Amino acid sequence: MNFRLVFKLTGKTLMVEAGAMLLPLLVCLYYQEDPRPFLITIPLLVLVGALLSLLRSNDHFFSREGFFAVALIWLLVSAAGALPFFFSGYFPTYIDCFFEAASGFTTTGASILTAVEPLPKGILFWRSFMHWLGGMGVLILTIALLPSLGSRTLHLMKAESPGPVVSKLVPKSSQSSKILYAIYCGLTVIEIVILRIAGMPWYDSIVHSFGTAGTGGFSIKNLSIGAYGNPAFEIIITIFMLLFSVNFSLYFLLLCGKVRQVFQSDELRFFLVVVFASILLISINICDLYASVGEAVRHAAFQVGSVISTTGYASTDFDKWPEFSRTLLVLLMFIGACAGSTGGAIKCSRVLLLLRCIRREIRQVIHPRAVNVVKLDGHVVDESALRSVYLFFAAYMFITLGSTLLVSVDNFSFGSTFTAVVACIGNIGPGLEMVGPMGNYAAFSLFSKTILSLCMIVGRLEIIPILVLFSGNAWKRS
Amino acid sequence: MNFRLVFKLTGKTLMVEAGAMLLPLLVCLYYQEDPRPFLITIPLLVLVGALLSLLRSNDHFFSREGFFAVALIWLLVSAAGALPFFFSGYFPTYIDCFFEAASGFTTTGASILTAVEPLPKGILFWRSFMHWLGGMGVLILTIALLPSLGSRTLHLMKAESPGPVVSKLVPKSSQSSKILYAIYCGLTVIEIVILRIAGMPWYDSIVHSFGTAGTGGFSIKNLSIGAYGNPAFEIIITIFMLLFSVNFSLYFLLLCGKVRQVFQSDELRFFLVVVFASILLISINICDLYASVGEAVRHAAFQVGSVISTTGYASTDFDKWPEFSRTLLVLLMFIGACAGSTGGAIKCSRVLLLLRCIRREIRQVIHPRAVNVVKLDGHVVDESALRSVYLFFAAYMFITLGSTLLVSVDNFSFGSTFTAVVACIGNIGPGLEMVGPMGNYAAFSLFSKTILSLCMIVGRLEIIPILVLFSGNAWKRS
Repeated sequence: MNFRLVFKLTGKTLMVEAGAMLLPLLVCLYYQEDPRPFLITIPLLVLVGALLSLLRSNDHFFSREGFFAVALIWLLVSAAGALPFFFSGYFPTYIDCFFEAASGFTTTGASILTAVEPLPKGILFWRSFMHWLGGMGVLILTIALLPSLGSRTLHLMKAESPGPVVSKLVPKSSQSSKILYAIYCGLTVIEIVILRIAGMPWYDSIVHSFGTAGTGGFSIKNLSIGAYGNPAFEIIITIFMLLFSVNFSLYFLLLCGKVRQVFQSDELRFFLVVVFASILLISINICDLYASVGEAVRHAAFQVGSVISTTGYASTDFDKWPEFSRTLLVLLMFIGACAGSTGGAIKCSRVLLLLRCIRREIRQVIHPRAVNVVKLDGHVVDESALRSVYLFFAAYMFITLGSTLLVSVDNFSFGSTFTAVVACIGNIGPGLEMVGPMGNYAAFSLFSKTILSLCMIVGRLEIIPILVLFSGNAWKRS
Repeated sequence: MNFRLVFKLTGKTLMVEAGAMLLPLLVCLYYQEDPRPFLITIPLLVLVGALLSLLRSNDHFFSREGFFAVALIWLLVSAAGALPFFFSGYFPTYIDCFFEAASGFTTTGASILTAVEPLPKGILFWRSFMHWLGGMGVLILTIALLPSLGSRTLHLMKAESPGPVVSKLVPKSSQSSKILYAIYCGLTVIEIVILRIAGMPWYDSIVHSFGTAGTGGFSIKNLSIGAYGNPAFEIIITIFMLLFSVNFSLYFLLLCGKVRQVFQSDELRFFLVVVFASILLISINICDLYASVGEAVRHAAFQVGSVISTTGYASTDFDKWPEFSRTLLVLLMFIGACAGSTGGAIKCSRVLLLLRCIRREIRQVIHPRAVNVVKLDGHVVDESALRSVYLFFAAYMFITLGSTLLVSVDNFSFGSTFTAVVACIGNIGPGLEMVGPMGNYAAFSLFSKTILSLCMIVGRLEIIPILVLFSGNAWKRS
């Protein structure tokens, strides 16, 4: 393991984070709030980052270093991002701050705050801005800003980008990340403007667009988007949540005019079928609870969009819905968004591939001599790619069940404990019962909060990097 | 698909089932109870069975036919086994009877009865005897009794025997099944005798031994084994539940004097580690609830043995335990017993293989050029065997989550619904909350009872046969 290079990369990322904190600092100053949380943190990060960046290292950088660096960077960036929260005095302990920051950068949106409205605007801005930064990955951002890393970046992308397949848009990966970054910024700006036109104040539209773009879910209202009671906001945000859960390379294809190719994407079709079927089923199930069918459909669509995109905003308290709708939402928490989006969880393409593999297994029994292959978008998926899908799924379920056991020491109900873990590892945010959309994570012990923070990072980085970080083997000097 | 042969086999099995019903009929007569439920069912089954057996067919019998036949036979045998319940008048609807019979033959032990004690001894005997018959598989029994099937039987065994690997004990499969059958009968008789010596009445020791041997869990007491308040019974049954969850081929090795080979079994070691660790953790967790540490350990051991063996007896109401113990038991419900035992669920060997595959994946990242193989008992497990383990796991989890959604229409709590499905597909019996060890499945709708019955059969037959049965492809004439 080339520790020096890993630390060097970490140092550079911390300096970028310090730079990113200038924006919430400006917000603080604009609203005449106490700027000290940021004024203390920024120089600290610059100092530590600069020291680490000065390390001399050779260029040996393999996938091992890539996975290790990604895991370490996400942990340290969250730890550093927690400092303004800590210095603000609004959070009980540093672990709570770390939970909130990990939830921010991993675009989870789970909060330990029992009420968000009393917090200063600068702190809330940083909280949502973390979603936006986390959304595309602090590292893709780093790559886009620091092209000096050059050829090393592919390993970083492989370790970080969400989904089973990294398809490079254009040959140079720093070029691809710039295109993704441009699409991401473009969509965010469009959402901000549309929300403003619909009547949401500038500040609110900016932070809520950050939360949508990163599929995060931190709101500045206790009742989330439902607080505004404005159907237009809900519809706009529903649409953008779904837009941000689609594979970004499809937008690139759209920009190139390849519309047909976009709608031939198996994953997109699967995603749309799941979304519309879920909206339909939930609308039927909750019809009686609302004044009109239209209102029921609107709430169903908002919650389905929020959960499958792994955002976690709420327009109503879905924890009060009938069990069928609640369970369906929990299932969507496992499925998650499309690969190559800012969403989390298992991802539609993996679920689709698993279903196709199971179908192949049945066909193999019925016609043992037939040659059966699994295809995605018309191309045969090779067995090693399938194997990593199987193992991802197994590891995901094992970690979910294992973490449920660890968190159960807090002695909350099975529904609360299980869905808290599912919502954290899937980067959704709200679960059911105690951690429902109108609940929060405040009551968990510091131990459970640490476990849940790790779950968020494990989910966001698609498991393997964190397992590499915690594997004794990886720490050996090569 | 060679339907004629499949129906012929089904017919023979129904006749065997009719023969098996003579035993509960004798119990009825001995206790001077109404014998009509059996007097109506037996001739009916003989008639239908005989008609089906008369079908002329060719000898084409491939794995397709094997999987199809096994699935159909389990469905029909459960449907037929439900008839005495139906004619007894103690069950509200036929679906309830089917649920109870499927629960019997699949050795689940989930019951829709709110109280079992008022039922006649003959009916209760049949209920437990179904566990015993189901335990080794109605088909292995059929093979042992009807050796005329000869070479065809391997496909049946492949489709039915629990666990990822069918290791033939001796070259001829009808010979193997006789040996397994002898071990099974031997252990059952030993348990009956020991329970009798410890002071349990003959009738009670026989039915409870049937339930232990088949890892079923139907009791003749509302409070299950806890009703006796006799620690000796609990200890004896704990030991036998664990004995029946071990791969039976290890007993064959023991009989051959190969003691060392037995304790080198990776699966056995894994099983023992899980069992002892769980007992330790639960004992610590529940220590305060009982008068002495010994009592806590005894209850912990009983419940751990009951759940991991997928039996489902209870010595105390574990639903009242702290959340950590409850969650640990739910995790054990997923793991289940060893392959090649009468237990259900995912099986220790599969869980162990999945863990080793995940470890290999991490090693591959750290040392990309190293050759990594996955071994079990010192032998390399080939990739196609691993693939079927991966897919089994994925299908198991998908069916569990999907069935949870279907059963959630009944609007019971998430904990009840989810653990009901987990307990049914894993063939355990009791879950948590409403379906806890002192609860039952009576409150579910007929729709949910049907889904849960199918889950039991899906779990018992290790998924693939039922998927083949419901696949449109399988129904095409070849």
